[in-house]
Amino acid sequence: MEIFRTPAELQAYALSNKRAGRTIALVPTMGYLHAGHCSLIDIARQKADLVIVSIFVNPIQFGPSEDLDKYPRDFEHDAKLCTEHGADAVFAPEPGVMYAPDASTVVEEQKLSRPLCGARRPGHFRGVTTVVAKLFNLALPDYAVFGMKDAQQLLVIRRMVRDLNFPVEIVAAPLIREHSGLALSSRNAYLTADEKERAVILSRVLDAARPALIAGGVEAIPAVLEVMKHEIEKAGGRIDYVEALDASTLETPNAKTADLLVALAVYFGNTRLIDNTLVWVKQ
Amino acid sequence: MEIFRTPAELQAYALSNKRAGRTIALVPTMGYLHAGHCSLIDIARQKADLVIVSIFVNPIQFGPSEDLDKYPRDFEHDAKLCTEHGADAVFAPEPGVMYAPDASTVVEEQKLSRPLCGARRPGHFRGVTTVVAKLFNLALPDYAVFGMKDAQQLLVIRRMVRDLNFPVEIVAAPLIREHSGLALSSRNAYLTADEKERAVILSRVLDAARPALIAGGVEAIPAVLEVMKHEIEKAGGRIDYVEALDASTLETPNAKTADLLVALAVYFGNTRLIDNTLVWVKQ
Repeated sequence: MEIFRTPAELQAYALSNKRAGRTIALVPTMGYLHAGHCSLIDIARQKADLVIVSIFVNPIQFGPSEDLDKYPRDFEHDAKLCTEHGADAVFAPEPGVMYAPDASTVVEEQKLSRPLCGARRPGHFRGVTTVVAKLFNLALPDYAVFGMKDAQQLLVIRRMVRDLNFPVEIVAAPLIREHSGLALSSRNAYLTADEKERAVILSRVLDAARPALIAGGVEAIPAVLEVMKHEIEKAGGRIDYVEALDASTLETPNAKTADLLVALAVYFGNTRLIDNTLVWVKQ
Repeated sequence: MEIFRTPAELQAYALSNKRAGRTIALVPTMGYLHAGHCSLIDIARQKADLVIVSIFVNPIQFGPSEDLDKYPRDFEHDAKLCTEHGADAVFAPEPGVMYAPDASTVVEEQKLSRPLCGARRPGHFRGVTTVVAKLFNLALPDYAVFGMKDAQQLLVIRRMVRDLNFPVEIVAAPLIREHSGLALSSRNAYLTADEKERAVILSRVLDAARPALIAGGVEAIPAVLEVMKHEIEKAGGRIDYVEALDASTLETPNAKTADLLVALAVYFGNTRLIDNTLVWVKQ
């Protein structure tokens, strides 16, 4: 497996492979890989001739008071998992080679990026779309695989790809959970044993919301969200948001809404966890 | 010569040629081609296996009170010139196939795009960088040729390419002038015979500024700009801006400035013309 540390190395590798007619699948990650990431690599492996995994804790998608500095890192373990899952190359640059000191260009999605995490983390999605555009231009993928845990990110990236005509097919990979129901996340490493046990409430309230919303439709949303918030707070979670939006537009659901994204961000201790589920309210 | 009307057609053509190992040069234009554009096509022809000319009057780079609706168009003549200069393909889409009704993603350069035309035409360069990013993703060029008449545009595009890692080499093509000195522009078609004669003052004042700035350096700028403005107004031009900035940063020149961009935008009648020259003040 190749390991590239600079944009120029990766782009040269990608260009020569594209010119030789080989297809490329990219798995963009921030490292500290878990079974969720591995499932993305497995999917990428089935899609293309070459699989490139990027490992980059992207500073411009973190707010000034967020966890950039303490974000967990373990490159040796990451590289081992990438090898085991058949990646052909890992791209692991330092921030200094990714961003020039006078970098002044951003890619911004201005609609789907506004609610939910976009409202709570100003600038986050601008950082995401900017770095993903860079990674697309460096790895030149035919496919890029993103996990559905970051449901809003997936929507924003799909919109960016459509609007800017990137020649990339975005592949959505199912959210992977622990046996307890807790969604896999690199940030789970921050949780104490007690917090981890309490955080199981997130998948439980999402599971309970599904039948209630399927039965009650859009009108049931306010009551369902109230119950969810109550249960989360009872378990010691501090709510950042718990919302149900139209899953296509991320606008307030209305009579035409066919499917809902029920999404939440909740703190346990200092750790912010996100989770979500899709509910078809019209079938 | 191929003529493509939709993004999907162009991208399929570009992808299959890239996979076959052929190189591509793109010449992005707004059509109504003149000898300046033809020189860009000639340069592109020397660079790559395939030359693609895009002809698209991009609505999002025009302000609400600008000349989008009356911008001159002549597709038959444009196609003839493209054929004569050896282009392999023309991409001429309608705005409706370039922008979805709910398009919400922009590419924005936030520093070099601010002064000069950026200050006078808010949103202009955001429209330019967004459409050029789209054209790069559709035509997948190894080279893209831009004229030096739009000097600020060239700087902004180069910065975008660097910051977003587009795998494209930007080629700068010399400004082409009429025998009178008037810079070629599709907008010259708007000028009356009288206005066209008066507009010759623009290249004259730029020519006169060069030796004065080489002799006097950065300190001479205010006096030189005063003379330029006076001469332009005497010839009946209405000044939008006449400025001399550091040609690398587009900031106010200082003791370290090695070369100046002397740039101007001036109205004759209702027609806004731009012109510029580069002056090396330190050699």
